[in-house]
Amino acid sequence: MNRTLRASIVGASGYAGGELLRLLLDHPQIEVQQATSESNQTKYLYSLHPNLRGRTTLKFSSVADLEPCDVLFVSLPHKTSMEKVPQLREKAKYIIDLSADFRLNTPDTYKHWYKVDHAAPELLPEFAYGIPEVNRAHIKISRFASGAGCNATATILGLYPLVKAGISIERVIVDIKAGSSEGGNKPSLASHHPERSGCVRSFSPVGHRHTAEVLQVMGWTEASKVQMSVTAIDMVRGILATLHVFTPEKLRDKDLWKIFRMAYQDEPFMRIVKDSQGIYRYPEPKILIGSNYCDVGFEIDEESGRIVIISAIDNLMKGAAGNAVQAMNVMCGFPETAGLSFPGLHPV
Amino acid sequence: MNRTLRASIVGASGYAGGELLRLLLDHPQIEVQQATSESNQTKYLYSLHPNLRGRTTLKFSSVADLEPCDVLFVSLPHKTSMEKVPQLREKAKYIIDLSADFRLNTPDTYKHWYKVDHAAPELLPEFAYGIPEVNRAHIKISRFASGAGCNATATILGLYPLVKAGISIERVIVDIKAGSSEGGNKPSLASHHPERSGCVRSFSPVGHRHTAEVLQVMGWTEASKVQMSVTAIDMVRGILATLHVFTPEKLRDKDLWKIFRMAYQDEPFMRIVKDSQGIYRYPEPKILIGSNYCDVGFEIDEESGRIVIISAIDNLMKGAAGNAVQAMNVMCGFPETAGLSFPGLHPV
Amino acid sequence: MNRTLRASIVGASGYAGGELLRLLLDHPQIEVQQATSESNQTKYLYSLHPNLRGRTTLKFSSVADLEPCDVLFVSLPHKTSMEKVPQLREKAKYIIDLSADFRLNTPDTYKHWYKVDHAAPELLPEFAYGIPEVNRAHIKISRFASGAGCNATATILGLYPLVKAGISIERVIVDIKAGSSEGGNKPSLASHHPERSGCVRSFSPVGHRHTAEVLQVMGWTEASKVQMSVTAIDMVRGILATLHVFTPEKLRDKDLWKIFRMAYQDEPFMRIVKDSQGIYRYPEPKILIGSNYCDVGFEIDEESGRIVIISAIDNLMKGAAGNAVQAMNVMCGFPETAGLSFPGLHPV
Amino acid sequence: MNRTLRASIVGASGYAGGELLRLLLDHPQIEVQQATSESNQTKYLYSLHPNLRGRTTLKFSSVADLEPCDVLFVSLPHKTSMEKVPQLREKAKYIIDLSADFRLNTPDTYKHWYKVDHAAPELLPEFAYGIPEVNRAHIKISRFASGAGCNATATILGLYPLVKAGISIERVIVDIKAGSSEGGNKPSLASHHPERSGCVRSFSPVGHRHTAEVLQVMGWTEASKVQMSVTAIDMVRGILATLHVFTPEKLRDKDLWKIFRMAYQDEPFMRIVKDSQGIYRYPEPKILIGSNYCDVGFEIDEESGRIVIISAIDNLMKGAAGNAVQAMNVMCGFPETAGLSFPGLHPV
Repeated sequence: MNRTLRASIVGASGYAGGELLRLLLDHPQIEVQQATSESNQTKYLYSLHPNLRGRTTLKFSSVADLEPCDVLFVSLPHKTSMEKVPQLREKAKYIIDLSADFRLNTPDTYKHWYKVDHAAPELLPEFAYGIPEVNRAHIKISRFASGAGCNATATILGLYPLVKAGISIERVIVDIKAGSSEGGNKPSLASHHPERSGCVRSFSPVGHRHTAEVLQVMGWTEASKVQMSVTAIDMVRGILATLHVFTPEKLRDKDLWKIFRMAYQDEPFMRIVKDSQGIYRYPEPKILIGSNYCDVGFEIDEESGRIVIISAIDNLMKGAAGNAVQAMNVMCGFPETAGLSFPGLHPV
Repeated sequence: MNRTLRASIVGASGYAGGELLRLLLDHPQIEVQQATSESNQTKYLYSLHPNLRGRTTLKFSSVADLEPCDVLFVSLPHKTSMEKVPQLREKAKYIIDLSADFRLNTPDTYKHWYKVDHAAPELLPEFAYGIPEVNRAHIKISRFASGAGCNATATILGLYPLVKAGISIERVIVDIKAGSSEGGNKPSLASHHPERSGCVRSFSPVGHRHTAEVLQVMGWTEASKVQMSVTAIDMVRGILATLHVFTPEKLRDKDLWKIFRMAYQDEPFMRIVKDSQGIYRYPEPKILIGSNYCDVGFEIDEESGRIVIISAIDNLMKGAAGNAVQAMNVMCGFPETAGLSFPGLHPV
Repeated sequence: MNRTLRASIVGASGYAGGELLRLLLDHPQIEVQQATSESNQTKYLYSLHPNLRGRTTLKFSSVADLEPCDVLFVSLPHKTSMEKVPQLREKAKYIIDLSADFRLNTPDTYKHWYKVDHAAPELLPEFAYGIPEVNRAHIKISRFASGAGCNATATILGLYPLVKAGISIERVIVDIKAGSSEGGNKPSLASHHPERSGCVRSFSPVGHRHTAEVLQVMGWTEASKVQMSVTAIDMVRGILATLHVFTPEKLRDKDLWKIFRMAYQDEPFMRIVKDSQGIYRYPEPKILIGSNYCDVGFEIDEESGRIVIISAIDNLMKGAAGNAVQAMNVMCGFPETAGLSFPGLHPV
Repeated sequence: MNRTLRASIVGASGYAGGELLRLLLDHPQIEVQQATSESNQTKYLYSLHPNLRGRTTLKFSSVADLEPCDVLFVSLPHKTSMEKVPQLREKAKYIIDLSADFRLNTPDTYKHWYKVDHAAPELLPEFAYGIPEVNRAHIKISRFASGAGCNATATILGLYPLVKAGISIERVIVDIKAGSSEGGNKPSLASHHPERSGCVRSFSPVGHRHTAEVLQVMGWTEASKVQMSVTAIDMVRGILATLHVFTPEKLRDKDLWKIFRMAYQDEPFMRIVKDSQGIYRYPEPKILIGSNYCDVGFEIDEESGRIVIISAIDNLMKGAAGNAVQAMNVMCGFPETAGLSFPGLHPV
């Protein structure tokens, strides 16, 4: 367990790339070998990721100079990734791709949601969907894993206990509140501070693409069972997913406690947050900033039977880099929490 | 139309009271006569409402010294208001009460939602529910009007066009994002800046009391038709209501345009916001701060038929003081927009 | 006094242009005739200034189609303005330029601070420096006025009472806290929400160009008397200037009260804010959002004699558009507060 | 080096106490034994520090039940601490007090700034001022250390290189921008979110008490050499100190580089941040949240010779709990960075 693997990151200039670097530089069993960014070659990593100043003297390199390594993280934009991964697959034993390109099982589903033909359909069967809490056994025996969509992750981890327990679900309305780092590091008028500050913006009222991942993991074929709406709020990191769940079954509070405990009692990154008092009695993303936790809670509407499930993550951690490192830990046989011990801050 | 009426405010120390003062001090047909606050007697109004510095030299007085006036606004806490209004009703020709105490038509409904017997049930029939867009004719012939709940207002104004057009509605999930001024001006740990800043807090996942007003205005008896969840976000003023509406009818985009236009084309404070491009293409509360507008927009989920209606207001304006002044304008025969011309700011 | 003048705005797509439109559309003696933006021709004004939706159906036009008007506001970028104004001067009786190009009296000073030759030095003597509180008589008899720099305005209005009273000043350290709208509406990495949110960024620790205006208005030739540092904070609108003033004179609290009252007691937009209790006992920009006030307060450091002057404005109002409308009111003989009555909000 | 010491915290319910718990629970050589809070006895630690949910099952205990330990952190309010510490000193070999009570060397200085007689003057000589970067040798041989004031820490670490290099300093104006967690966890109207959000509030324009610590560390007797003003901004954690330094010496950029490098090149928590490009080219507190770094940068005003030094910390870390753990590491012979490896986040 004390062996050290070499890890490299392709596309390390973005926000997920920066978080991967932060985590891997302090990971007890990883040595960071290379971090590529075509447009930032020869710059210090800390010139784009200022929190790493004093932590590494590595510079960005070009993917053309990528050397073989043990674990390769690919953090390229959607559609670019599926073009590059086929060429990269011989560079490393393990590959974890953070884009949307290898999350869906079939090229048809991909085309339906992303409106383009998949460039490497032959690779899809080799990728394990990378949320350990719902797919650990598969990840453990795979060479390749895909990161999950951040909004999909918060949704899936909120719903999973019900589905695992065999609860029949008619319909789920997923109302997501999301921070600005979801949009990446490219400036635009929508991300311009005077416009984005203080906003409560209906970003994607209907048709959000992460719906596809939720359906796939739940094993649901009827698209209308999951209906997502995403609202952008004045927050940099964080997702709060409010899931309004309709079921014909009559569930009581103690049933849900049992269902959630059965699903998550042994999971190191899942916490059930449902207190009768206090101000943090439901999940809240701000205290998760920088941590890999997904906090989940619930409440039952007595009048209607609606179940409200609340799920919170840091979109760059459990929603991207943190989850990717967790998946790597699973694949490589490391302790699952290695490099992921930061608990989050309070107050913040 | 040039006559001036004397207005007084009972309970003028709170946030809604402050907004009433701001609006009434600049209202062309109103002279502010008195503003009461028992715990702030003899202090200048601007000591609590610092934006009024230099605008008035009035001081807070006691309700014991209240003199007769033409219009009396009562801005007391719920439950206190119904104790006081019976004694105040002879002080003024017109009374507008901003609490929850005179919104519901029957004492039974009040008790069901507020868990206490109504102290003045005989007055309930005299109060008109004070949202002009849905109840103008009644307000016009009434001496008494009740303000509406802020979250109820955003919800009602989003739903009203559908109901007015006779669309059958199975169920509405109302997911509200709310600012901190909804909670009033009393400090608590929940409102303490290090805790409240950056929060995305499930404030009322089920059982929100404003549900009662929505049901009453819609004329629905089945409580489970409206299911609200309120999430507190890092914002001082503002409400964004995302309404997930389920209907058996097949509505197209142009049907909804027609329905919303029919309901609101002559309304001075309703704007339909639904553009195909730009960053403000749906309603957004931040550009409504200080204004009396309610902006509404919508989108149809093609896969499921779900209609997503988006409604935004400033909770202290259209959700409280602005709407109360609008109701006063209706009752008193003033131009409905008098004193309410501020359009909101951008950027902000 | 009831006559109406026609006003047009060249360069109306920016934030100051938007505020000018908001103010002029509601100004009792102004009719807005044209608003130009080369890159937004034929778009509705509200497509860029969403708060004006429902307030005007005007569209942006080209400066090439500019028709004669009574008052022309020029809101172009620095350096562009001095190229265009010579061609525009025959279009209107009154011109108010909001750029930096016509603020400094001599081409040499301009070149020293802006590092470029002035393109229209012959026009400099025709422009009155446009802060009415310090230059009203000159503005009144001028056809042309220049807006003042926002940071300069906050500084000048804080210092002016001392200088007017003949107090000898050795040195002033001006420490400015500024919002993001100062930077205009062009997105960049520095204004990208995930980077700009929560920042406390030393934007201009030394050498800020607005220093030149302060020196000019104070009549000081020694550049080192005024030393500015600007720090960008997480705020959209607003400036708080903390002025650390050193004087050999021994001034007491009551001396400063007298000095500030003498300077500002008749000024409609200046308020002295210095209370012994309360949370708004010094000037604070947030309650000035949308208003044209400049609030000023002060405190004396007993140990050292340092005077701390605190000055707050809304940078887009008293720091730009509001002040420009005030200057227009002075030039055109309108009541000085016409169109500028909005008092600001609380809470906000 | 592998031995483990037992640490307890008296007054663990506050924000500094919470951070101490977070750090000590993950410290490789510390076992947390007890955490006291009189008003929260028998509650779980995570009920007040929600980020610790799942990290510890400890509950708050009473100081009356405090057992002997190796290291005792005292995190009580000013004035309470000096009453309690005399009784606590036999409980532990090492005591680190985070209040202001043991920072100043003499009871007279304490009384001058805190307006009360010191209750335990005999203990003052036993306390080492606890900033390792300026007092490491003393801390290493002491049993007792005092934490430093957060605003003092940012100021001292900015100034120290100049003083260490023997640069003559005439006067320093310290303009501090501070977050809300400085005020602790007790709600008040000043900390009420609708009032505190968006504020830029002159909290302490003159006479700030941390001045005393700066003077003491610098060895300056003339109080007017250091002049602080503190402005509260909309931020939870963080301090940016802008130091305007006046010296008769002519220093160039490369002189300052040398001076700062000499002072800090071997310091693990000090980073010199002064780049010619990029958006984080000066210190910025937001990327330090949760980390123990103090970032310092500087610029010279060519016209006047003024030196602007910029210093940033997380007030709860390098300004309180983090620095206290660092001091403990020094006292106990642990590696100085033990338990303090978190680098901070980006974006955030």
